[in-house]
Amino acid sequence: MNLNDNTAILLIHCPDKPGILAAVTEFINQHKGNILYLDQYVNREDKVFFMRVEWELTNFQIPKEKVEEYFQTLIAARYDMNFRLYFADTKPRMAIFVSKMSHCLYDLLSRYAMGEWHVEIPIIISNHPDMESVAKRFGIEYHYLPITKENKAQQEAKQLEILKNYKINFCVLARYMQILSAEFINHYPDRIINIHHSFLPAFAGAKPYHAAHERGVKIIGATSHYVTSDLDAGPIIEQGVTHISHKDTVDELIRKGRDLEKIVLSHAVEKHIERKILAYQNRTIVFQ
Amino acid sequence: MNLNDNTAILLIHCPDKPGILAAVTEFINQHKGNILYLDQYVNREDKVFFMRVEWELTNFQIPKEKVEEYFQTLIAARYDMNFRLYFADTKPRMAIFVSKMSHCLYDLLSRYAMGEWHVEIPIIISNHPDMESVAKRFGIEYHYLPITKENKAQQEAKQLEILKNYKINFCVLARYMQILSAEFINHYPDRIINIHHSFLPAFAGAKPYHAAHERGVKIIGATSHYVTSDLDAGPIIEQGVTHISHKDTVDELIRKGRDLEKIVLSHAVEKHIERKILAYQNRTIVFQ
Amino acid sequence: MNLNDNTAILLIHCPDKPGILAAVTEFINQHKGNILYLDQYVNREDKVFFMRVEWELTNFQIPKEKVEEYFQTLIAARYDMNFRLYFADTKPRMAIFVSKMSHCLYDLLSRYAMGEWHVEIPIIISNHPDMESVAKRFGIEYHYLPITKENKAQQEAKQLEILKNYKINFCVLARYMQILSAEFINHYPDRIINIHHSFLPAFAGAKPYHAAHERGVKIIGATSHYVTSDLDAGPIIEQGVTHISHKDTVDELIRKGRDLEKIVLSHAVEKHIERKILAYQNRTIVFQ
Amino acid sequence: MNLNDNTAILLIHCPDKPGILAAVTEFINQHKGNILYLDQYVNREDKVFFMRVEWELTNFQIPKEKVEEYFQTLIAARYDMNFRLYFADTKPRMAIFVSKMSHCLYDLLSRYAMGEWHVEIPIIISNHPDMESVAKRFGIEYHYLPITKENKAQQEAKQLEILKNYKINFCVLARYMQILSAEFINHYPDRIINIHHSFLPAFAGAKPYHAAHERGVKIIGATSHYVTSDLDAGPIIEQGVTHISHKDTVDELIRKGRDLEKIVLSHAVEKHIERKILAYQNRTIVFQ
Repeated sequence: MNLNDNTAILLIHCPDKPGILAAVTEFINQHKGNILYLDQYVNREDKVFFMRVEWELTNFQIPKEKVEEYFQTLIAARYDMNFRLYFADTKPRMAIFVSKMSHCLYDLLSRYAMGEWHVEIPIIISNHPDMESVAKRFGIEYHYLPITKENKAQQEAKQLEILKNYKINFCVLARYMQILSAEFINHYPDRIINIHHSFLPAFAGAKPYHAAHERGVKIIGATSHYVTSDLDAGPIIEQGVTHISHKDTVDELIRKGRDLEKIVLSHAVEKHIERKILAYQNRTIVFQ
Repeated sequence: MNLNDNTAILLIHCPDKPGILAAVTEFINQHKGNILYLDQYVNREDKVFFMRVEWELTNFQIPKEKVEEYFQTLIAARYDMNFRLYFADTKPRMAIFVSKMSHCLYDLLSRYAMGEWHVEIPIIISNHPDMESVAKRFGIEYHYLPITKENKAQQEAKQLEILKNYKINFCVLARYMQILSAEFINHYPDRIINIHHSFLPAFAGAKPYHAAHERGVKIIGATSHYVTSDLDAGPIIEQGVTHISHKDTVDELIRKGRDLEKIVLSHAVEKHIERKILAYQNRTIVFQ
Repeated sequence: MNLNDNTAILLIHCPDKPGILAAVTEFINQHKGNILYLDQYVNREDKVFFMRVEWELTNFQIPKEKVEEYFQTLIAARYDMNFRLYFADTKPRMAIFVSKMSHCLYDLLSRYAMGEWHVEIPIIISNHPDMESVAKRFGIEYHYLPITKENKAQQEAKQLEILKNYKINFCVLARYMQILSAEFINHYPDRIINIHHSFLPAFAGAKPYHAAHERGVKIIGATSHYVTSDLDAGPIIEQGVTHISHKDTVDELIRKGRDLEKIVLSHAVEKHIERKILAYQNRTIVFQ
Repeated sequence: MNLNDNTAILLIHCPDKPGILAAVTEFINQHKGNILYLDQYVNREDKVFFMRVEWELTNFQIPKEKVEEYFQTLIAARYDMNFRLYFADTKPRMAIFVSKMSHCLYDLLSRYAMGEWHVEIPIIISNHPDMESVAKRFGIEYHYLPITKENKAQQEAKQLEILKNYKINFCVLARYMQILSAEFINHYPDRIINIHHSFLPAFAGAKPYHAAHERGVKIIGATSHYVTSDLDAGPIIEQGVTHISHKDTVDELIRKGRDLEKIVLSHAVEKHIERKILAYQNRTIVFQ
């Protein structure tokens, strides 16, 4: 991983037509960009073309601040493209939302502390005071905003203000036990990542391990997804599963599930940080 | 596997009390039975004890035809036990129900032809003529009973008669695309094994691969379960899963799913044949 | 899958340079080919570019019999390409080699009988008579060529003659318990697929399940690979694994392993038939 | 899990004979012990009986300090048993050995901080100063003992002294990049847990990810095992695997491997803490 190198990343989708791939790669080659990664996919049912390309900027002849404009004019306009351009040296800024459980939080923060990810995590927001000691351990600001039915709208407004002040690009709900309002979610479309402790769409909603135990399934799962206003129904990023048996009590499912949850959430966050995910019509394209 | 050896198998469940395990093992040891396999499990929430024990009969002092009576009198009565006694040299008799797809059917029949299982499969029943050629390949009788809304009750009656004539102990629905009536099912409680082509309880009912694709899941599954009158909601025996990606079309899910379905179904059938499954309150205990 | 459609498939590798991807896709687009699948990969250590592209020929302006020549002249020469061109309507012809075990054989033949694969399987070759009954079941010619130390060279010569007579393109060793000579292998480079019953490179050679049991591993595996003159050391195509426990005897490992072996082998064969594999320096690139 | 409850745990192995199971369970029942978990296994090849049983002591009529003596006299002597007796309220004391990598260390310490495990971790020992900051974060003493060829014996003697002073029961090598001497290992038989970053026995020794990449495997693994004087050849406790592709560079294998390593190591440590592992002739029995 050399994400902090001097590279540009393009995420594209547009109606499928012949010549798109050649046009995009020619645009980069022609101006002396060196393509490092390229992955494309065509949805043939809906006739939509998707692409992620990453290239070195060192000898690229178009100045960094002009790349977006030139690409728009020379290529995107011609093919009716939706695109997003990122520069790998710009670190995205991430906020973590947490309630009382620490396993996902520790997994995220230890990767951050190790320097495994090219990201900034300036703040943790919580509706409980419990995780403040963990935040302190890693030297990260902790904002405690208790939430009741009555003050919810007000507290969400405060949260949004904090996110704005800290220039947060995306949020990670690390077992945050509050349902966000549609209004809140609209500020961060496809930029709030949740971990749900079941193999969605099975066992959406509360107490999925209890429900899994009751149903007698032989495999449990965890699902990371972008949050939409439809509870536990947003675009799925990654899922993980583990085998269980009749011997496992609900407590043991909870324990086994923790390892699934933290790994699945961290993998989703990693792919988001690396700009490898494109959400389209409630599904995700996860590029390689 | 020496299932055709001269062994007895006991499947037991009863209210949990101290001393059950000692009582059962003493009963076998005392009369010179040699215990080969023993697996037990206590459901602590419901305070129920479950056990499977298999022992050699060669030197067992109680005659085979008296074992059930003696065990009932000496042990089962004392502990309020539900138990079933099997002798490994009695081959269970199995019927396969099939419609138009052959992948599960081939997997079952090839294991049967190989002698992998200690079972008899005298008949295949179908609502379509398509699989008759496969049945012929393996020299198994094929009963074609087309089913319409109008003749369903009548045809089920014929099926039951055939099952009775052939002394069938249990049925395997190898992608049989008909919903059995509650009446039919009542003749074979916990003795009809189905394969559903999804990770239940997600995507119960028709067209699960289409629904999985629509939802954008990253893992698909297959589930074998005993059939109850509640559609796709009976006790789960085994589940299997495989990772998929946004690139997989519905057709590719169907193709990948076939390998899951056949392996998961065959594993469930194998455990049933080996008398390793005990269904209790819509869940299964699967002994080792 | 519409492999029997009127499509062309190109497998390419060449020194990595800017512009290859654009050149190849332009070649196809320009002459009215409709690209269906494209996957590429750059090995940055060795600076080698790999690509698989499949396109519809219906409106392609270069006649089928000229595509190879034109591509060589216009594109391949310029980039120092190694390439192979296939037409999806040409069914590859496959021979199965087998000894005494039937599980892989049944899995291959049942897929063939189902029409799951776009392939012809005219013959089965064996050093034992045991599998002839299975071959008959599926109506396939069976050539029994017993092998001893003394007659090995001679029998291999006969095998090669048979393969030639039946215009066989590739061979599948479905648990064929004979080591092929280097000379034999040289006739079918990267065109003999073997299944080894271990997670290679662990437990190469004879009796891998015994060795796995002895070592006390907690996971067993199966590996499909192209055969080279170096025993069990050819390019790996696919691997599969399953968890085991201390309770599993060698016999149970053998039983559990059979399901791994048959699925892993069939997946490898499928990818070979679909021309998705490129072997390079003893590793495989498996395109999507 | 109520490991800190007032329970006793017996791990037993002895020559297999009829009546052992009954004798042990009767011993517990008779004296008013309430059995919570019981798992047994018979190795039929070697005719050895293995068992783990855990029971509540609250009403147990034999005083805690006499249980070992009574069990030895009344049961163990009769059956030639090897046994170990533990009380769940005695926390084992664990030392972590680490070099420069933090992923396993963080995973262990975050579980410890969460209170997930019934264990004490008073010290971390390292041959490098790098991980001291992590140790500080969690308030754990850090002993930095640099090791060279010349001072190795001396430094190991110091390590042993520290372990003794802190009454350490077992050691966890969390990617500790030093080979322990046979002498050191002899002080902690079956009580030093290592994580090796490959699917053993494949790729033992140095640089397994490089070797895996070179060989072109399609699955990588991690293996936790007890350390013996034979490098990477001790009894395996747990293994984990993940699928890779030709696209993964060595760096990506290292990155993917980290998640395997930390989870596999922590699961092994958990089972050790819960006294669920019995090593016998270089293999492990892992009870449920």
